Amino acid sequence: MSAYEALKSAFNRIACLDEASAMLGWDAAAMMPEGGAAARGEQLAVLAGLSHEFLCAPEVGENLAAAQAEGWDGKNLALMREAHLRATALPGALVQAQVRAGRACETIWRNARKASDFEAVRPALEEVVKLTREGAEILGQALGLSPYDALMSQYQRGIDAAQAEAIFTRYEAFLREALPKAEALQATRPQQELPPGPYPEAVQAALARKLAQAAGLNFNAARLDISAHPFCGGTQTDIRITTRYDEADFAAALMGVLHETGHALYEQNLPAAWARQPVGAAAGMAVHESQSLIVEMQAVRSDAYLGYLAPLASAAFGKEITLAGLQHRLRRVQRSFIRVEADEMTYPAHVLLRFRLEQRLLSGELQVKDLPGAWNEGLKDLLGITPPDDARGCLQDIHWFDGAIGYFPSYTLGAMAAAQLMAAARQALPDLDGALAQGDLSPLTGWLARHVHARGASAGFNEILQGATGEGLNTAFFEAHLTARYLT
Amino acid sequence: MSAYEALKSAFNRIACLDEASAMLGWDAAAMMPEGGAAARGEQLAVLAGLSHEFLCAPEVGENLAAAQAEGWDGKNLALMREAHLRATALPGALVQAQVRAGRACETIWRNARKASDFEAVRPALEEVVKLTREGAEILGQALGLSPYDALMSQYQRGIDAAQAEAIFTRYEAFLREALPKAEALQATRPQQELPPGPYPEAVQAALARKLAQAAGLNFNAARLDISAHPFCGGTQTDIRITTRYDEADFAAALMGVLHETGHALYEQNLPAAWARQPVGAAAGMAVHESQSLIVEMQAVRSDAYLGYLAPLASAAFGKEITLAGLQHRLRRVQRSFIRVEADEMTYPAHVLLRFRLEQRLLSGELQVKDLPGAWNEGLKDLLGITPPDDARGCLQDIHWFDGAIGYFPSYTLGAMAAAQLMAAARQALPDLDGALAQGDLSPLTGWLARHVHARGASAGFNEILQGATGEGLNTAFFEAHLTARYLT
Repeated sequence: MSAYEALKSAFNRIACLDEASAMLGWDAAAMMPEGGAAARGEQLAVLAGLSHEFLCAPEVGENLAAAQAEGWDGKNLALMREAHLRATALPGALVQAQVRAGRACETIWRNARKASDFEAVRPALEEVVKLTREGAEILGQALGLSPYDALMSQYQRGIDAAQAEAIFTRYEAFLREALPKAEALQATRPQQELPPGPYPEAVQAALARKLAQAAGLNFNAARLDISAHPFCGGTQTDIRITTRYDEADFAAALMGVLHETGHALYEQNLPAAWARQPVGAAAGMAVHESQSLIVEMQAVRSDAYLGYLAPLASAAFGKEITLAGLQHRLRRVQRSFIRVEADEMTYPAHVLLRFRLEQRLLSGELQVKDLPGAWNEGLKDLLGITPPDDARGCLQDIHWFDGAIGYFPSYTLGAMAAAQLMAAARQALPDLDGALAQGDLSPLTGWLARHVHARGASAGFNEILQGATGEGLNTAFFEAHLTARYLT
Repeated sequence: MSAYEALKSAFNRIACLDEASAMLGWDAAAMMPEGGAAARGEQLAVLAGLSHEFLCAPEVGENLAAAQAEGWDGKNLALMREAHLRATALPGALVQAQVRAGRACETIWRNARKASDFEAVRPALEEVVKLTREGAEILGQALGLSPYDALMSQYQRGIDAAQAEAIFTRYEAFLREALPKAEALQATRPQQELPPGPYPEAVQAALARKLAQAAGLNFNAARLDISAHPFCGGTQTDIRITTRYDEADFAAALMGVLHETGHALYEQNLPAAWARQPVGAAAGMAVHESQSLIVEMQAVRSDAYLGYLAPLASAAFGKEITLAGLQHRLRRVQRSFIRVEADEMTYPAHVLLRFRLEQRLLSGELQVKDLPGAWNEGLKDLLGITPPDDARGCLQDIHWFDGAIGYFPSYTLGAMAAAQLMAAARQALPDLDGALAQGDLSPLTGWLARHVHARGASAGFNEILQGATGEGLNTAFFEAHLTARYLT
């Protein structure tokens, strides 16, 4: 067996362990009785420990030094090298300290957020930031990247912080002009509320399932269940998406399911011949988010699709759900404090704020103790509103407290990429709106399967966009999308 | 860390992997979409492979040679030694040949059973029997046991084939006399059928859940779901029981759930301080079966409990479910061809037949080609009936075709032990029937927790019975139970 073949076999085994973890993680969120939590934690720790041990194994290092490969195999080998390097670059003691600090900080954060007490979690966050910085410096040296780029690239390869900053700066200028206009235009329009509930959970679930299926999700290889925090988990041939239902509002669950369906389609359509190899995986979190958002935001919230949904929802719930009602519920801009509740126009401002703050935190330019003030000033500057407390300010997201720095830009890079991909798909598929008007997402998702999904991790963010749309990320498409939807 | 501590740590890790496998096995049966099957097979193979590799590791052998321990630790160490010995005694090539042969034979058997074509599966079964014999001889030498006992003891320690044969021979004599009498008495009694269905699945499920809970099952650490073949899976703090529902007959699902509840209570009550150590596991398949059958057959099918169930079921289903109707449905003897459908009096005859035949197959005294004839003669001799075809004869059970020889006696040893334990519990708990008449199994299951569950695997079959009842297995208790229920 060649060195490369041995590596493929080793990575296949690692992937099987990671698949087992993914299924047990889904189970913990969607099925497990609470009594199982402690044992599950230990099972997952053993699986993660073995996966890490196999990735760091000396023979993997030796085979990586000896292996040679071309084409997709060459890309696969490069991804193996990066994974091994990332796993071995940090001293074990630092990794353990990071895990301990992140876990401790997250626990304190849960209560601190409830009490809106930043000072309570400040020392723990200082420790997390300090250890993250140490790790980022070592990783950056190993990978030849800046510390922040070393973190950012673990979530998404193929776009760096400088490129993202240029994009976000342009968007900032657009937003300062567009948001007041959108608000003014919105105020002139009639506000048609959807009829009050109840919208029975079972009816919502059946409708969500039907729409996901029509969007192309294959339920012979997927499930839809309930969890407190919706997600897409499982594995390529056994996707598990979850949602939660609110009987007063059917729209949240429907949009949630279609969002996760976008993620799920990406996983289902990854190149099966490269399953369990690094190059066969998704290309990163920003690309993943582009796939959920092109379904949810670009396709499903379009007039064409909502026009299809309105009579379907009316029949399912026995209430009058109009296109105007859906438009009002699903397409409204509003300056708000909470990122996860933000509309698509203001959402990037929340991300931009975090993206800039986390870079300054990592470099040490911003002290943790000064974070609440910097947060509030930043939001005031971007959206003109000031959080009434830190719970609705810098304590709202788990990410930093958990040690995840470098993740935030993925959300907005994904939203922008979705708009750019949609524009290209529309060019390639002249009757796209006609299909959407019949609830048929297959032309769109088929196009995505060929131009995005099939590439696996063989290309980075901008390279995938280049291949699919003819250029790297260009925020003009996202701006044009928002202009068409909110300014005309 | 002492050699023994190192072993405890190694076995803890192995147990975590086995727990992951157990959860994924449950998921495959109860949740997984069919598209996930191939990937799941590979995930489970990786987990089982690692578990086996860790058990066989040279350092485990070295630590076992060096370790010393007393008390429960000493028993734990002995069980570790046996597990390591069993895992390492067979040459790898033989184990692989056994796995391959078993898998191939099982596949052929599925079609052969459908077609009732023994000849189609004969060559594959010959290979399985030959390889099982080779393994049993090696294992027997390593463990100082006869080949058959070496197989039997992997399912249940603490009772051997000679002891089982003595018990079964006595039962055979009882049956020859009791069965015609029970049939004659039964014929004189009114046959009160339960009302026809439908019995809605959701109502059955709610009632089953309620009864399982009243029997002591803690749903904070358990789930009840649906699968084609009911079982009790999961782990001690996260038990997963399954059943299947037939809307024409609620009794099967209810009895099934209560049967699995007996298994589940055993697992939930195992000594938590020894979790993930061999001595903290269940004592074997016969003891496990005794725990499911003492709940299902001894407690739940008693007049006292059925008297409690009748009005409850009547209210739940809105039909008149009488005690007499339940008695007729749940307590009827009948000579039949299929083991899994047999009543508690004739069931042991099915086991006895298999127990004797499998010993002769293993020794080579009986050729595989002569199995159908020997089977039919044996059943004719024991129950006076002859299977109309091999599908209802020697092709009905998966066990041998899958390579499982030595398992069958556990079913009947468990049924007999259940009767003996019930008699002892009745002595210790004078108002046991009063509690059963209120659906309260807690006095019984509390007694079982103290006298059986808490012992884990620290004792074998007869030793546990000795401790709980004052003597090793004595079939007189089972005979007395059947006499009281069917002959008076």
